[in-house]
Amino acid sequence: MYIVGELINASREKIATAIGGGDSTYIREVATDQDKAGADFIDVNAGIFVDQEADYLQWLVENVQSVTDKPCCIDSANPKAIEAALAVHQGPTPLVNSISLEKYRWDNLLPVLSGTDLRVVALCMSDDGMPETADERLKNADKLINGLVRNGIRVENIFVDPLVQPLATNSTYGMEFINAIERIMTGFPGIHTACGLSNISYGLPERKFLNQTFVIMAITKGLDGAIIDPLDRRMMGVIRAAEALCGRDEYCMDYLKAFRAGLFKF
Amino acid sequence: MYIVGELINASREKIATAIGGGDSTYIREVATDQDKAGADFIDVNAGIFVDQEADYLQWLVENVQSVTDKPCCIDSANPKAIEAALAVHQGPTPLVNSISLEKYRWDNLLPVLSGTDLRVVALCMSDDGMPETADERLKNADKLINGLVRNGIRVENIFVDPLVQPLATNSTYGMEFINAIERIMTGFPGIHTACGLSNISYGLPERKFLNQTFVIMAITKGLDGAIIDPLDRRMMGVIRAAEALCGRDEYCMDYLKAFRAGLFKF
Repeated sequence: MYIVGELINASREKIATAIGGGDSTYIREVATDQDKAGADFIDVNAGIFVDQEADYLQWLVENVQSVTDKPCCIDSANPKAIEAALAVHQGPTPLVNSISLEKYRWDNLLPVLSGTDLRVVALCMSDDGMPETADERLKNADKLINGLVRNGIRVENIFVDPLVQPLATNSTYGMEFINAIERIMTGFPGIHTACGLSNISYGLPERKFLNQTFVIMAITKGLDGAIIDPLDRRMMGVIRAAEALCGRDEYCMDYLKAFRAGLFKF
Repeated sequence: MYIVGELINASREKIATAIGGGDSTYIREVATDQDKAGADFIDVNAGIFVDQEADYLQWLVENVQSVTDKPCCIDSANPKAIEAALAVHQGPTPLVNSISLEKYRWDNLLPVLSGTDLRVVALCMSDDGMPETADERLKNADKLINGLVRNGIRVENIFVDPLVQPLATNSTYGMEFINAIERIMTGFPGIHTACGLSNISYGLPERKFLNQTFVIMAITKGLDGAIIDPLDRRMMGVIRAAEALCGRDEYCMDYLKAFRAGLFKF
């Protein structure tokens, strides 16, 4: 399972304050904590600072990389900001988050990715909007994967995000999402899937509990990447347990390691 | 989701003592508690009292039925004891737990079920032993379902139990089980599946947590019956959440009801 640590995101007030105030100590601390907790990528997002996004994203990458060897997940809807961040990123190939079928993003980000070994999150959305059914997600996934592969991005470097929609809006949205995960994982050998999960519980009580339940269901259908708070010990424990039960953890070694690390003490 | 309340089982010391001492008050209390907690069937098992099993099973049925309208799940490996218990059971058709392909059970229990509207748990095992793979489970399920239907038991009254095996023994046992659930539910329209879950976590730490994670995975693959402790509020909450996320709970009404009933307060 690829864990993307989501905490360094300017939509969180403490992060926005740290970015605005140049508080590199706090950013480095949050990066270190996520690394230690088991994140494989450290997400960096400065999206709320529209005019300075590129500069701030570079600053975040530099600070994160000063304290961890884990690659960044460069998180922006702005291809220019992504390009700037990539220019300063060093070491293991980062994850670009994200491309989509939206014309502006596709046209501007594709040349940056083309022929490289960069990893990329591919959102199943287009200028026509968000998908609702598994079929719509598959249609978008097919276009994304084929388009990326034709442009020299290896299938192993693509993380398709089928996009979670709130269950409270429509009782079928959970199933449509996880069925899309299954069809993408079985239909495109070598592909990865990754997503944030918290949208599923929007408008319902006990959101963390629903998110944890939903990640188990998505893993059951093949999900192998999650954009989460790795400091949420319960969520990390849930993921380790689900992976063990799915047969992805020989002799339950990772589960037992997580147990000894106290991930199941609540 | 069909919930079978598992607590009135003589393998539990307090129940054995109550049965041996004729303490009907305690049995009635445990029946009432499980009814109120949402059980659809109240399991009764007196298996440890080999010579008196039939008499004790009748006594359990009578006491349970004196305090609840929920049908019993008559739980015995002994066809004669099941027949005795059925003779005193009143009201909604009970669940007979269980038949299997083992020759003695099959030959002696089939005439009791044949042509009736009794519901029955059908264990995917034979005299050759327990199944390990999804294929072995499917082979047994196919024989059981076809054999029962040919003998006048409606497919809607059959609850196939593919039999959970401990994950600690083999990392594939979780997946083999849930894949069997999926293949049985999709391959035999109208069929039900039901099982106990706790074997999955045998030999591993944090068993309750693993069992809860596993029930979510099984529900994701279509499981619609579980033999559990309905007084375990966390387990009941987990099941309600998984059902809502699976699209089995329109407008999340049952989930919200469970929330208001405090099932998510831990």
